[in-house]
Amino acid sequence: MMTSTQYSSAYQELHRLFTRLSRFDHLSAISGWDMQTMMPPGGNKARSEALAELSVLRHQILTDRNTGELLDRAQQETLEEIDRANLREMRRQYDNAVLVPDSLVEAKSLAGARCEHAWRTQRPANDWRGFSVNLREVVKLSREEAQIRANALGCSRYDALLNLYEPGMRSSDLDRIFGDLKTWLPDLLQKVVAKQQQEPCLIPQGPFDVDSQRKLGLSVMAMLGFNFDGGRVDVSAHPFCGGVPEDVRITTRYNEKEFLTALLGIIHETGHARYEQNLPREWLDQPVALARSTAIHESQSLFFEMQLARSADFLKIIRPLIVNQFGEQPALAEGNFIRLNQRVKPGLIRVDADEVSYPAHVILRYEIERALIEGEIEVEDIPALWNEKMLSYLGLDTTDNYRNGCMQDIHWTDGAFGYFPTYTVGAMYAAQLFHSASNALPNLNQAIAAGDLSGLFQWLQQNIWRHGSRYSTETLITNATGETLNPRYFRQHLENRYL
Amino acid sequence: MMTSTQYSSAYQELHRLFTRLSRFDHLSAISGWDMQTMMPPGGNKARSEALAELSVLRHQILTDRNTGELLDRAQQETLEEIDRANLREMRRQYDNAVLVPDSLVEAKSLAGARCEHAWRTQRPANDWRGFSVNLREVVKLSREEAQIRANALGCSRYDALLNLYEPGMRSSDLDRIFGDLKTWLPDLLQKVVAKQQQEPCLIPQGPFDVDSQRKLGLSVMAMLGFNFDGGRVDVSAHPFCGGVPEDVRITTRYNEKEFLTALLGIIHETGHARYEQNLPREWLDQPVALARSTAIHESQSLFFEMQLARSADFLKIIRPLIVNQFGEQPALAEGNFIRLNQRVKPGLIRVDADEVSYPAHVILRYEIERALIEGEIEVEDIPALWNEKMLSYLGLDTTDNYRNGCMQDIHWTDGAFGYFPTYTVGAMYAAQLFHSASNALPNLNQAIAAGDLSGLFQWLQQNIWRHGSRYSTETLITNATGETLNPRYFRQHLENRYL
Ligand SMILES: [Zn+2]
Ligand SMILES: [Zn+2]
Repeated sequence: MMTSTQYSSAYQELHRLFTRLSRFDHLSAISGWDMQTMMPPGGNKARSEALAELSVLRHQILTDRNTGELLDRAQQETLEEIDRANLREMRRQYDNAVLVPDSLVEAKSLAGARCEHAWRTQRPANDWRGFSVNLREVVKLSREEAQIRANALGCSRYDALLNLYEPGMRSSDLDRIFGDLKTWLPDLLQKVVAKQQQEPCLIPQGPFDVDSQRKLGLSVMAMLGFNFDGGRVDVSAHPFCGGVPEDVRITTRYNEKEFLTALLGIIHETGHARYEQNLPREWLDQPVALARSTAIHESQSLFFEMQLARSADFLKIIRPLIVNQFGEQPALAEGNFIRLNQRVKPGLIRVDADEVSYPAHVILRYEIERALIEGEIEVEDIPALWNEKMLSYLGLDTTDNYRNGCMQDIHWTDGAFGYFPTYTVGAMYAAQLFHSASNALPNLNQAIAAGDLSGLFQWLQQNIWRHGSRYSTETLITNATGETLNPRYFRQHLENRYL
Repeated sequence: MMTSTQYSSAYQELHRLFTRLSRFDHLSAISGWDMQTMMPPGGNKARSEALAELSVLRHQILTDRNTGELLDRAQQETLEEIDRANLREMRRQYDNAVLVPDSLVEAKSLAGARCEHAWRTQRPANDWRGFSVNLREVVKLSREEAQIRANALGCSRYDALLNLYEPGMRSSDLDRIFGDLKTWLPDLLQKVVAKQQQEPCLIPQGPFDVDSQRKLGLSVMAMLGFNFDGGRVDVSAHPFCGGVPEDVRITTRYNEKEFLTALLGIIHETGHARYEQNLPREWLDQPVALARSTAIHESQSLFFEMQLARSADFLKIIRPLIVNQFGEQPALAEGNFIRLNQRVKPGLIRVDADEVSYPAHVILRYEIERALIEGEIEVEDIPALWNEKMLSYLGLDTTDNYRNGCMQDIHWTDGAFGYFPTYTVGAMYAAQLFHSASNALPNLNQAIAAGDLSGLFQWLQQNIWRHGSRYSTETLITNATGETLNPRYFRQHLENRYL
C-alpha cells in the first residue's frame, strides 16, 4: 500500500538524513536493551557515556540549520500523500528538538538523572524531604521547558508537554474524558468490589519453576502471533518492549511464587511487540513508520492484555497450557481461574492495579502534575493532595506513606510530566477498538473460544499497525472506529465484564 | 602509573575526538556482539546497515582534514611520554584509514561480503570453481590496497598488510622465524606422534549436559580471575572475545558429546578477556589503551590455553571440577586426562590442531598468501600449492578436498591477508613470556599445583596488560623478557612438554 517515490529534492535529502538517524536509533535501542537485560554492573558508566554521545550526535544532526532549511524547501515540493505525512513527522521531530536550548536539555537531563538515582534509595527509606529537594529542581526545569514549548505552540504549559506523548491531545480533552469517568467509576468500583466479595477466589499454590514459566510464556507468545524471527523475550527488572521494529525485544520478570504477573506481563508486551513488528515495513527507516503515539502504543498492549487475555473466552484457551506446565490444582479450575484474572481490588500501587481501579491512579496523577506544571501548586503541596485524592477516589489512606504514595513512580523523577494520562487514554482506545473489531467480526467470541485469533489480528493490522504515523491519532481512530475517542466503550466494557 | 595531563592544545582536541570515537566503537562492539549471540535472523539486514552507518561516520570523523591538521600541530607540542605514545597510536589509526580511498574500502568490503556469503554454501559443496571467481576479486582489491599502503610505507605489499595486524613486523622477520621452525618442527612432530602411539588414551564418554558444562566453564573462569562485574560468557556459532574493556563478552559453543573443546575454548577466550579487562583503566577511551596487536592478544589467550591450562599441574587442579560436574570415569583418571589434553595428531583442519602441528598450518598459509599478494602466484595456483605443502609439512593428502583444504578458513574470503602469521607469532610470544614468568616466579609450578595463580597474573598485569599500546611490540616484549621475539622458547616448550 505504501510505496516510496524517488525525488531528487529537498525531501529526498531529508529522507536520507532520517534514514541515517534511524540507524543511529537502532544502535541506541539495542545497546539500551542490552543495558537492561545483559550488561554486568561494571559496564554502566561506559555504556551511559556511549549512549549519551550518540544522542548528542543525533540531536546535532537533527537540529542543524541545514535540516530546518530542507524542511522549509520540502514544504514547497509536490509530494505524494504518504511522503507529505512523512514530512510532517520529520518536522514534528525537528520542532520538538530545536525549540529547547541545549543548555536546558542538558540541565534537565542531569537534574533528572540525579533525582532518579537518589529516588532509588529515597523511596525505600520513605524520605520525602530528601526527594522533594531534587524534585523541585526537576519541576523548575520542566516548567521552563514547558513554557518555551507553550510559547511556540500557543497553548498552556501542560498541553505543550502532553503534546510530546500524545500529539494533538489537549488537557481540555482530558478534563472532559476524566470528568465523565469520575461521574461513574467510583460507583462502579464499589459495586464490583461488593459483588466479588460474595465470590470465593483461590490463589494458585507454587512454586512455579522459572523454566516452565518461560516455556509457557513462549507458547502464549506464539499463540498471539509474535514473530520470533524478528524478536525475542528476556528478563529485566522492569518489563518493557524495546529493540527495533525489525528485532523487537520484550522482557518480563519471573517469580517462583506466582506466575500470573509474568504471564500477563508477557501478553501485555506482546501487544506492544506486534504493533512494532507490523509497522509499515517499506518505511521502517522513516519517521512515518514510527508508532503513532504513547497512548496508541498502550492501546495495543491493553487490547492484548485487558480486552483479549482477561476475557473468559481467552482465559479458557490458555488454561490448558498452564495446566500442562504446572499440573491441575483447584485454583486453576476454570471458574476460579477466570475470577482470579478478573479480580478487582483497590490498592495503593498503580502498577499492581486492576483495570477498574487503574484510572483512579491516573486521574489523581494527572490532576496533580498538571497543577504542578501550570504553577498552581508547588512540590510541597503534593503529599496532602495525594492523600486527599487517594481517599476520595479509592478510599485508601496514604498519610506519611510516601513510599507507596507520591514516591512510587519513576516518571516524575525524570521530568516525564504528561505521560500518565496516556495509560488511561490507551485503555479507552483499546475498548473502543475492541468494540469496533467485534462489530466487524461477527463471530469473534466463538473464534477466540476456538483459539482462532487471526481475524482479530488482521483487523488490527488493517486498522492500526500498518499505518504507523501516517495519520493523526484522531484520523487513525476515526477511520478504525467511525468516531474520535469515546469513553463510552470503556465504561461498557467494564460494566459488561465486572457487573 | 599512567596519569592524564591537561593540555589546551591540538593534542587536547585530539584527545576529545578519540574519546568520541571510542564511544561509537563501544556501541559497534556491543551491537556486533549481540548480532553473534542474541539477534534473531530477521534482524540481520537492519543491523548490518546500522553498523555500516556508524563505521562510515567513524571513518569520516577520523579522516577529516581537521584530524590531520591537529595531528601535525600536536606533533610540535611538548607532551608527556604517555601522551606522545597516545599521539603515535592516533596517527597510526589516521594513517591507516586515510591512505586508502573510500571507493576502494567500499569495493573491498562489498567483494569480501559477497565472497564470504557464498563461501558459507560453497565450502560444504566443495565448490572451488565457484569460490575462486569471488576470491579473485578479493585478491585483486587486496593487492590494490596493499600497493597503496606499500607505496606510503616504503615496503613490500605483503608487509604493508602485515603491518595492520602486527605493527612493525616484516615478512623478513617471519621468514627467519618460520625458516627456523621448519628445520626442527617436522622432526619433532614425527617423534611425538611415534611416542604417543605407545600410550593408550581413552576418550571421555558423554553425554555431558550443557548446563553442567556452563557451570564448569564459569568455575574455571572464576579460577582464572575473569571479572564478572565487567563481562559475561554466552554462546555463539564461532567462539570469540568481544565487547569493550569495561564489559568483555566472551563466547563458546557447547556439544553434548564432548566437553573439552568448549572448556579449553573458554580458557582461551578468558586469556583474551583478562588482557582486555586489565588494559590501563584511566586511558580506556584513548588509542594508547588498546591491546598492542593481534599477535600479543593471541599470546595472552595461548598463554592461558596452551602454556597454563594444558600443563600437567593445571590439568590436575581442574580435573576435580570436571569430575564434580560429570562424575568419575576411566578417561578422567589423572594420567589419561593429561594425555588427552596433550595429544598430538596432525589433521586437515587448522582450528582443531594441537599446538605442535598448528604452526605447519600457519606457515603453509603464510607462504601461499604472501606469494598471492606479491603477485608471484594466482588464485588458481592455490590448490596445488596447498596439496604440496600439506603433504610436505604434515604428510596429509588434500587432493580435491577443497572443503577441508584451502577453503576451510574465513580469513581470505574477507581479504584479511596478513592475519594468519599472528597465530604462531602469538604462540611464540606466549612461550617466551611463560619462560620469563617462570624465571621471575621461582615456585611457579608449586603455586599452580596449589591452585594459586595470583603470581602469574600479577606478572602478566605488570608486564603486558597494563601497558596497552604504550610501547611498540618489540619494546613491550624486550621489557618483559629481556629480548625480542625468540622462537627458542617455543621450541623448548614443545620439547619439554611432548618429548
Ligand atoms: Zn505498556
Ligand atoms: Zn584467540
